[in-house]
Amino acid sequence: MGMNENVAKPLDQLLELLADDMNAVGTLLSERMSSRHAPRIPQVTAHLIGAGGKRLRPLLTVAAARLFDYQGTHHQLLAATVEFIHTATLLHDDVVDESKQRRNRPTANLLWDNKSSVLVGDYLFSRSFQLMVETDNMRVMSILANASATIAEGEVLQLTAAQDLATNEDIYLQVVRGKTAALFSAATEVGAVIAGASEEQIKALFDYGDALGIAFQIVDDLLDYTGASETIGKNTGDDFRERKLTLPVIKAVAKSDEAERAFWTRTIEKGDQRDGDLDEAMRIMNRHAALEDARKDALAWSARARAALEALPQSQLRDMLSDLADFVTARVA
Amino acid sequence: MGMNENVAKPLDQLLELLADDMNAVGTLLSERMSSRHAPRIPQVTAHLIGAGGKRLRPLLTVAAARLFDYQGTHHQLLAATVEFIHTATLLHDDVVDESKQRRNRPTANLLWDNKSSVLVGDYLFSRSFQLMVETDNMRVMSILANASATIAEGEVLQLTAAQDLATNEDIYLQVVRGKTAALFSAATEVGAVIAGASEEQIKALFDYGDALGIAFQIVDDLLDYTGASETIGKNTGDDFRERKLTLPVIKAVAKSDEAERAFWTRTIEKGDQRDGDLDEAMRIMNRHAALEDARKDALAWSARARAALEALPQSQLRDMLSDLADFVTARVA
Repeated sequence: MGMNENVAKPLDQLLELLADDMNAVGTLLSERMSSRHAPRIPQVTAHLIGAGGKRLRPLLTVAAARLFDYQGTHHQLLAATVEFIHTATLLHDDVVDESKQRRNRPTANLLWDNKSSVLVGDYLFSRSFQLMVETDNMRVMSILANASATIAEGEVLQLTAAQDLATNEDIYLQVVRGKTAALFSAATEVGAVIAGASEEQIKALFDYGDALGIAFQIVDDLLDYTGASETIGKNTGDDFRERKLTLPVIKAVAKSDEAERAFWTRTIEKGDQRDGDLDEAMRIMNRHAALEDARKDALAWSARARAALEALPQSQLRDMLSDLADFVTARVA
Repeated sequence: MGMNENVAKPLDQLLELLADDMNAVGTLLSERMSSRHAPRIPQVTAHLIGAGGKRLRPLLTVAAARLFDYQGTHHQLLAATVEFIHTATLLHDDVVDESKQRRNRPTANLLWDNKSSVLVGDYLFSRSFQLMVETDNMRVMSILANASATIAEGEVLQLTAAQDLATNEDIYLQVVRGKTAALFSAATEVGAVIAGASEEQIKALFDYGDALGIAFQIVDDLLDYTGASETIGKNTGDDFRERKLTLPVIKAVAKSDEAERAFWTRTIEKGDQRDGDLDEAMRIMNRHAALEDARKDALAWSARARAALEALPQSQLRDMLSDLADFVTARVA
C-alpha cells in the first residue's frame, strides 16, 4: 500500500468534521433497512453496510451541502439514498459477477443465495426512492433518476463489452461512468442542489464527483493487477481471470503485435487460460507501459477533480475535498 | 377456460375505448426501452413487452385518469411507468423462481442468462423512475415509491414464507398485495391523482385497484391447480412442485388432520415429492373445499372492487371497469 499518513488524513479529517451528519446518516440507514415483515432484508443489508466500507458516497453528499452552509437535514436523507443505491448495486453486481468475496468477507449471494441478493437489492432501491421523495425536491429526483439509468445501462454495457477485444477507451469510460462515476457525481450534485447553490457551483460539484469517480475506478482496476490481496480485499488478477477489459488491458491490446494479440484473443476472448498467463499478461502490459499510462490517466482525472473545486470559494472543507482527490490516487501515485 | 363472450368483452371494450391512449403508451414503451449503448436491453425487454400481455396495468392508469375527463398526456407517462415496473418485476421474478416458461414462451433468463435479466430489470426500474419524474408531481412519486417498497418487501416475504406451513391467510394477503395488488392500486391511484380527482375519488380508485389485484392473484393461484396448461401458459401444478403456499393450500392445511398434515410436511416443507402427490394434494384440497373457498374469496374481492366504484359518478367507463372486475374472476366463476 503506497498510502502515507499525509494523504490518508483527508478522508479521516472529513469524517471527523462531518461526524454529526454522518452519525445521523448511519441512524437513517439502520432505521430504513429494517422490515417488519421480512427479517431477511436487514440481515443481508447489514452484512454489506456494516462491512467496513468508508461511506465515501454519502460523505460526498453531506460535504457538498455543507460547502454552502446548508442548515437543514435533507442532505442526510440524500446521503442515505446514495448509500442504499450503492448497496443495491453491490448486491446485484455480486450476483452478476458470481463473486465470492468482497472486502475480505464472503458475499451475500454466497452466505444466503442469489434470490435474496436480487430481491433485497430491489428493496433497497425502493427504499432509496422513498428517502429521496421525502426531500420534496423534483430536481433532485431527476438527477438521481438519470444517474440510476446511467448506472444500469453501464452495467448492461459492461456485460456485453466483456471479453470483446474491440472494447476501446471510449467504451471503457462509459462503463466506468455507469459503474462508479455516475453515483459519485450525483452524490455531489444533489448535495449542492439541496443546499441551494448557484448553477455554476452545482456544475463544479458535478464535475468534481465525475472526475473523482473515474480516478477512483481506474485506481481500482490498476490495483487488481498491482495491489496486495489483503489490501484490495480480493485476489490479485481477478479481472484477468474474469476476462474483464479494464484500462491497462485495453491500452496494452491497442499496442500489441500479432503474437501478443493472439495471447489476448486466447485468454480474454476465448477464455482459454493456463498457468503463467497472468504473468505473461503483466509482461505485455509492462512492455507497452500500459499500467504506467493508466496510472497517469488516474492522476490526470484526480487533477481535474481538484481543478473543478476552484470555482468555489476557498474554505477548510473545500481544501479537504481537494486533498481527497489526491487520496483516491495515492495508492498508485 | 370458463370465460364466455359476455364477460370477455369488458377488457376488449376498454382497449377499444382507450385505443388512442394505449397506442401512445405503446410508442412510449418502445422509445424508452431503447438504449444507444446496450442493444441487449431492448432485445430482452421486447421479448417480454411484446409477448402478448394485455397491458392491464397501464390500461388501469389510463382509465382512471379518463374517468375524470383528464385531457393532458401525463397519464400516458404514468401508464408506461407502471408497465416498466411490472416488466422489471417479471424479469427478476423469473430469475428468483428459476422459471423456464412464461406466457407459453421461454423466459428471458433461459434465452439469455440470469445476469441479463437482473441488469435489464434494473434498467427498466430506472427508466420507469425517469418517466414518472417527467410528470413533475411529487404525490405521484410518493405513491409509486411506496408501491415499489411494498412490492419488493412482498417478494422477500414470499421467499422466506415459501415452504413454511405456518404461513397463514394474513401472510398470504401481504404477499399478494406485494406481488400483485400494490401495483394495481398504485396504477389506478396515480391515474386519479394526475387527473386532479377529489380525495374521496382517489381513495375509491385505490380501493378498486387493490381489490381487483387481490382477486386477480387468487384466480391465478387457483388456475395453477385447476386450469389447462395451454390456457395458463405454464404447467398445472407448478406451484405445488415449487412448494408455494398459495391460498388453496393454506386453507387445506388449516383444516388438515394429522395424516394430511404429514403429507404437507413431506411434500411442501421437506420437498420430498413422489408420483401421484399432486393428485393427493387435489384430493385433500377438495375434501376440505379449499379450492371452492378460495374461489369464493376471489369473487368477494371482485365484488369489493365493484362496490368501490359506486363512490364515482356513473359513466360508460365506470361500468366497463365494473365489468372488468367480473372479468378477472370469470375464469373461475
